[in-house]
Amino acid sequence: MRGFFISFEGPDGAGKSTVLEQVLTQIGSKLKTQYLVTREPGGSKIAEKIRKLILDPANQEMSARTEALLYAAARSQHVEEIIKPALAAGKLVISDRFVDSSLAYQGKGRDLGISAVKEINDFATGGIEPDLTLFFDLDPRVGLSRIAKLRPGHEDRLEQEKLSFHQKVYQGYQEIAQKYPERIVRIDAGQPLEQVVEASIQAIETRLPELF
Amino acid sequence: MRGFFISFEGPDGAGKSTVLEQVLTQIGSKLKTQYLVTREPGGSKIAEKIRKLILDPANQEMSARTEALLYAAARSQHVEEIIKPALAAGKLVISDRFVDSSLAYQGKGRDLGISAVKEINDFATGGIEPDLTLFFDLDPRVGLSRIAKLRPGHEDRLEQEKLSFHQKVYQGYQEIAQKYPERIVRIDAGQPLEQVVEASIQAIETRLPELF
Repeated sequence: MRGFFISFEGPDGAGKSTVLEQVLTQIGSKLKTQYLVTREPGGSKIAEKIRKLILDPANQEMSARTEALLYAAARSQHVEEIIKPALAAGKLVISDRFVDSSLAYQGKGRDLGISAVKEINDFATGGIEPDLTLFFDLDPRVGLSRIAKLRPGHEDRLEQEKLSFHQKVYQGYQEIAQKYPERIVRIDAGQPLEQVVEASIQAIETRLPELF
Repeated sequence: MRGFFISFEGPDGAGKSTVLEQVLTQIGSKLKTQYLVTREPGGSKIAEKIRKLILDPANQEMSARTEALLYAAARSQHVEEIIKPALAAGKLVISDRFVDSSLAYQGKGRDLGISAVKEINDFATGGIEPDLTLFFDLDPRVGLSRIAKLRPGHEDRLEQEKLSFHQKVYQGYQEIAQKYPERIVRIDAGQPLEQVVEASIQAIETRLPELF
């Protein structure tokens, strides 16, 4: 018995969480299976404690490798406690961010290398991968200005990074999307919200018809 | 300019910390270089926060992989903030535990595999290795009964594990000591303290004569 796993990915401010909510409002009742919505970093008690440590603006001296390993640690706990049991029970799991975020932010953004970060994440997940990833493609300048309006002065440690960092992250996402076309669907997140939601639903229906 | 790096390793209750103190009392003034004593998991502000998370008995549901990744994360920060700068300044660094602890406790004790755990630690340390490791070899039953007497009722999450876990850890240490004979010197930790200290000093003098 194995459920389905969808991840939502993209740069900060691309609107992932809002789209996720609206997609579920529209398709939730049509789904054949139960679903579980979760997020990273976090998703379980221990993972949330690790999330706090990572995002606390007080921890400025955190090294890039430490950051990557902490994300992997939180993910490992998230997989073990939340994702694996739900998939084993045949559920649809939708996660706001997963491994691709680490490949883009730490692998590319922090210059640790996408393949080195993939290796520690393979250890963390024990090989669990999404069946489908929606990549919300948005110019990081647009994303950052959205965040500045949405929660001014309350950016976390990673959101506070310079534009050049976010541009590298964005480039990382482009590389990953090119590398895994069978798993990742690109959604133009610059469109009006309604159309972004519509495109997301279409991608899910096309790629995972078994869900309906 | 490169200093020297010594790690102290062994099962819980083998007396590493006490021996370390006494060794330094005896050889500290004879050393040519400045020295820095540190410990794992911990050794820096962020690493200590991670240490707290790992050892908190409240986090019973922590998965083995999460535990291994958190140790690697703490180690990475410890290397970056404390060990690397000290070595670059030509100092002698002595650490109470380092990578071998993870290989023994998580690789062998938690059945994650010594080589898998070595891989994430190579990522964490960026390849920094001790020049010399003193392995304090003691039957885990003796070590555990020492701890029970020393701090009854105050064992941390790992010390609370069953004897069978500690026996696997011990077996892990034996495998590692066999695998890296050029780096690891075995010290019989069942001897009276005075003799353990004497054997440790002898090992340091023989393996690293440059220090004196």
